[in-house]
Amino acid sequence: MQNFDYQTPTRLIFGEGVVEKLQKVMSAFGKKILLTYGGGSIKKIPAFRNQNSAISNQYSGLSLYDYVRETLKDFEIIELPGIQPNPKYDPSVLEGVRLCKEHKVDVILSVGGGSVLDCSKAIAAGACYDGDPWDLISYKVKAQAALPIVDIITLAATGSEYDCGGVISRTETNDKIGYLDRHLFPAVSFLDPTYTFSVSRKQTAAGIADAMNHTIEQYFVEDATLLNDGFCESMLRSLMANGRKCIENPEDYKARAEMMLACTYGCNGILALGNSESGWPCHSIEHALSAYYDITHGEGLAIITPRWMKHILNERTLPRFVKYGVNVFGIDASLDEWTIANKAIEATYAFFESIGIPMHLREVGIDDSRLDEMAHHIAVNEGLENAYAALTEKDIKEILMASL
Amino acid sequence: MQNFDYQTPTRLIFGEGVVEKLQKVMSAFGKKILLTYGGGSIKKIPAFRNQNSAISNQYSGLSLYDYVRETLKDFEIIELPGIQPNPKYDPSVLEGVRLCKEHKVDVILSVGGGSVLDCSKAIAAGACYDGDPWDLISYKVKAQAALPIVDIITLAATGSEYDCGGVISRTETNDKIGYLDRHLFPAVSFLDPTYTFSVSRKQTAAGIADAMNHTIEQYFVEDATLLNDGFCESMLRSLMANGRKCIENPEDYKARAEMMLACTYGCNGILALGNSESGWPCHSIEHALSAYYDITHGEGLAIITPRWMKHILNERTLPRFVKYGVNVFGIDASLDEWTIANKAIEATYAFFESIGIPMHLREVGIDDSRLDEMAHHIAVNEGLENAYAALTEKDIKEILMASL
Repeated sequence: MQNFDYQTPTRLIFGEGVVEKLQKVMSAFGKKILLTYGGGSIKKIPAFRNQNSAISNQYSGLSLYDYVRETLKDFEIIELPGIQPNPKYDPSVLEGVRLCKEHKVDVILSVGGGSVLDCSKAIAAGACYDGDPWDLISYKVKAQAALPIVDIITLAATGSEYDCGGVISRTETNDKIGYLDRHLFPAVSFLDPTYTFSVSRKQTAAGIADAMNHTIEQYFVEDATLLNDGFCESMLRSLMANGRKCIENPEDYKARAEMMLACTYGCNGILALGNSESGWPCHSIEHALSAYYDITHGEGLAIITPRWMKHILNERTLPRFVKYGVNVFGIDASLDEWTIANKAIEATYAFFESIGIPMHLREVGIDDSRLDEMAHHIAVNEGLENAYAALTEKDIKEILMASL
Repeated sequence: MQNFDYQTPTRLIFGEGVVEKLQKVMSAFGKKILLTYGGGSIKKIPAFRNQNSAISNQYSGLSLYDYVRETLKDFEIIELPGIQPNPKYDPSVLEGVRLCKEHKVDVILSVGGGSVLDCSKAIAAGACYDGDPWDLISYKVKAQAALPIVDIITLAATGSEYDCGGVISRTETNDKIGYLDRHLFPAVSFLDPTYTFSVSRKQTAAGIADAMNHTIEQYFVEDATLLNDGFCESMLRSLMANGRKCIENPEDYKARAEMMLACTYGCNGILALGNSESGWPCHSIEHALSAYYDITHGEGLAIITPRWMKHILNERTLPRFVKYGVNVFGIDASLDEWTIANKAIEATYAFFESIGIPMHLREVGIDDSRLDEMAHHIAVNEGLENAYAALTEKDIKEILMASL
């Protein structure tokens, strides 16, 4: 087992109606708030679906956005709307940092999905740094501080609400960088499962695939503990069972809630404490896809994952695939090991396909014209020669080809 | 799924040799330290078993106690030694509070097992309160603050190093109270698995039983999520497999490490987020046993657990026992449900017996002379009429009788 130094200081306030505590929570951080959000879905989501308390009665009928503005009317709010999926360094991060500095913002309130929150984290660090924020994101300079962040999450997927990382894209250089710093844990995350009722089938499926892949990336390692293996297997079984229910009945509270909770564990390390590093190979590959083509992250991961699995299956990795197949998919343990492993990979593919994810790169607008360039970019930048199953540029190219 | 408000701010520094960071960590909290410990095992445990760094070389050969004194020689250290298992309000908590107030202590450094840490938590709260510390422990008054606590844990069992609770005994009233307050999370917990190499077979077994029961208390609930069920089942499988290895080979680092990590999750809520309350019935019963007879907590739990299981097995609880039997003990799922359930309870008993735990109250010095009194005490004080399976005074008496 590896040594580790671990802390997840974020306070999770979870359940229907919990946003009624927002004003009280924000009061602890000061008076000036940068309110970040995306394309405007928060202006449609109802803040309270049921009126079962004084506050939910008082604000009955308001959208989440209107409720936030109303309950925080005694605060000074500066807005940064329009943050896109695969959030962009320019303009969103740069504009957010500028606003924070100009208005001497005390705290960022991020309302939306993982992209809004990831962008908010980069802003939080950039706001406390005198130089170019890219210095921090590219790890040229280590952040010394960050503004506190409170978030209201509206999508179950990335786990950004319970981790200290974010992913930022810089269009002109085709960079999509996963940026981690211990200052970037949200101080408080509000998670109301009803806010995900209106998430589309496509985005729900992408979220399931994202969280499943977070788990798979941590499961396939050399020396996993029995404890972590069981946690990961439970994550995968829960995400598949509840994810399917969310697709079938978008307003199934119990399923949405369990999926939301499972997603929070995806990237904060709890699934892999003491394990060796896996290298997160599917993420490394997918980041290039969405940097070059701006595709939906979860879809890219779902496409890559089974092809990566097939590529790395060999004598050494076989026992992991057998364990995965038996414990996650319930494949008969008495079968031949290679049969179990291949069935497990097929079951992974079949699950993603069954929830409606397009399982070929061509279906998401990626042809073979830039595969060489992407494979080279990944090989040079992502360090996959040190992954659980080492990947050369040739390996990466083959995985991409198989995904077409 | 139930709403929840959750935070575990403790920093875990885990692995062999991590205590070399102690001086740096303590510097953040001030100059005056109350050093709490137990019977003196920390004067025998080597601080560093291997010399693989500058600091471990420099302090080679020192006991953990001597290392702590040496590396913190520039701090003012006030000592509170002699804290007992089932830590006592009088004298330990009272004396600790007195010392903290008299010396204006900045931080408590707890070096030992869960009892030392539990006692330190009560002291930390009492030191910031003007009245009788029992007001806090008995929930008459809510703590408004507590001194920060750093701990070095030397026993894998209670999980106190990653939760905000403690258990304090008051001898004259036969009270043993589980006391929880969010101020009582340790700021930093050092966990070096080699410190548990010298834990006796008896105490290792009691630790396994303690952590297993923490998990079982959270597994048997009405509406567990699939996610939490998998986490709990993984805990139990890991604790049994690694616990057995620790008993067979006390210096098996990997087994000691995994057991130590598993134990930390026992009581901080992560295994039951969103589940309804279970009532922790075995703990409620065992607390009376160790309050009246001062027995080893983990042994008391191991004795009670299978008898409690047998007592509450009925049509309603059957499906939980079936799941437990199949997923934790690998009992053949095609058997009759009652057979699976009974086999699961027998397997629980057999496991505890196999690691050397005395499985009858008589073996730990408890006869039937005070069973009525204890059953009454439990029924009046523990609220088990609201447990997952409601227990009346008569039920409690029957469970105790079956445990003799």
